[in-house]
Amino acid sequence: MPSMESNTDTQQRILDSARELIYARSYADVGVAAICEHAGVKKGSFYHFFPSKRDLTLSMLDAVYADLKETLVMKAFAEDIPPLARLDRFGQLAAEFQQQMHQSTGVVLGCPFGNLSNELATQDETIRIRIEQIFTNLQVVIRKVLREAVDEGEIKNLNIEATAQAMLAYFEGVMLLAKSQNNTKILSQLMPAMSQIRINTI
Amino acid sequence: MPSMESNTDTQQRILDSARELIYARSYADVGVAAICEHAGVKKGSFYHFFPSKRDLTLSMLDAVYADLKETLVMKAFAEDIPPLARLDRFGQLAAEFQQQMHQSTGVVLGCPFGNLSNELATQDETIRIRIEQIFTNLQVVIRKVLREAVDEGEIKNLNIEATAQAMLAYFEGVMLLAKSQNNTKILSQLMPAMSQIRINTI
Repeated sequence: MPSMESNTDTQQRILDSARELIYARSYADVGVAAICEHAGVKKGSFYHFFPSKRDLTLSMLDAVYADLKETLVMKAFAEDIPPLARLDRFGQLAAEFQQQMHQSTGVVLGCPFGNLSNELATQDETIRIRIEQIFTNLQVVIRKVLREAVDEGEIKNLNIEATAQAMLAYFEGVMLLAKSQNNTKILSQLMPAMSQIRINTI
Repeated sequence: MPSMESNTDTQQRILDSARELIYARSYADVGVAAICEHAGVKKGSFYHFFPSKRDLTLSMLDAVYADLKETLVMKAFAEDIPPLARLDRFGQLAAEFQQQMHQSTGVVLGCPFGNLSNELATQDETIRIRIEQIFTNLQVVIRKVLREAVDEGEIKNLNIEATAQAMLAYFEGVMLLAKSQNNTKILSQLMPAMSQIRINTI
């Protein structure tokens, strides 16, 4: 039995490997064997930490969202600029991240949550619900910004909840289209339109 | 060797089965064996018509797009109503189709092209390019509508090409979000905002 520290390292290596491989390819294309090989761990060790690939994927989704919050969301939505400008900054930072990944991998990877949702939502209800929760968390952040914009008079008669959904949908769609073209150019061109979307109260 | 007519029938059954199974699940989750079983054909027969699952998928994508054109695009973009209203009709018909499928299958299936792009774009360049072409075809239809709207004075200073991309991105994102929620409600709520998206010339 390895020490506690080594346990944590092993678990983290498995998580990191799954994250890298699944993001670059797909859920189905990456098996437990490939994750173990990439992480340099034995299968027995894998199953000591994760009962299944699905359990690993749920942990991975949480880890990716925690990182996204830390590196992108908190930075983009810092309150040093007006509310709607923060949405633009979110789109811009996401575009820059995709450009960096494209330079290092040669492909547009898109959104890890959107990718797995489109691949798995009809097949794995547990994974679908986890992704839905992450999307809801992102909508909460956007709603807060929209509420501020309404309070400050930047926007009027706004259906905040529907607009937050529409903005997130647009964000996901721009990611999807860039991935389909394997081209990051449209990210910087299309993202600025996100903060312009409005669904009004009737 | 079966007759020509039976050949066509077999090929069509394979195509129909692949389409139904892959749309309901994913590319990776549906193997040649499952397609053959569903279609009631032998593996040898499968490989007589399609060298590989990828070749079948390329034919399937063409068939789905041909159907989409026939049943949705031509209907939505008929010239009996003003240009932008046709975009609204496209969103509405797509929402209705998803609702019907949801009623019969219990799940929101989303866009067959967006699904496969997010699953496969980094893994299969040939499939990615076919999907990119289909998305380009859809943008051509949207561009035509936007050109008319500009000519008739409905919109001014529009970057038609970028706006067509943005509208398609939004359409795909709304589909993705509905699939992630397994709920068709947001389709009818969010689709009307598609025709409102504008990216202006600088």
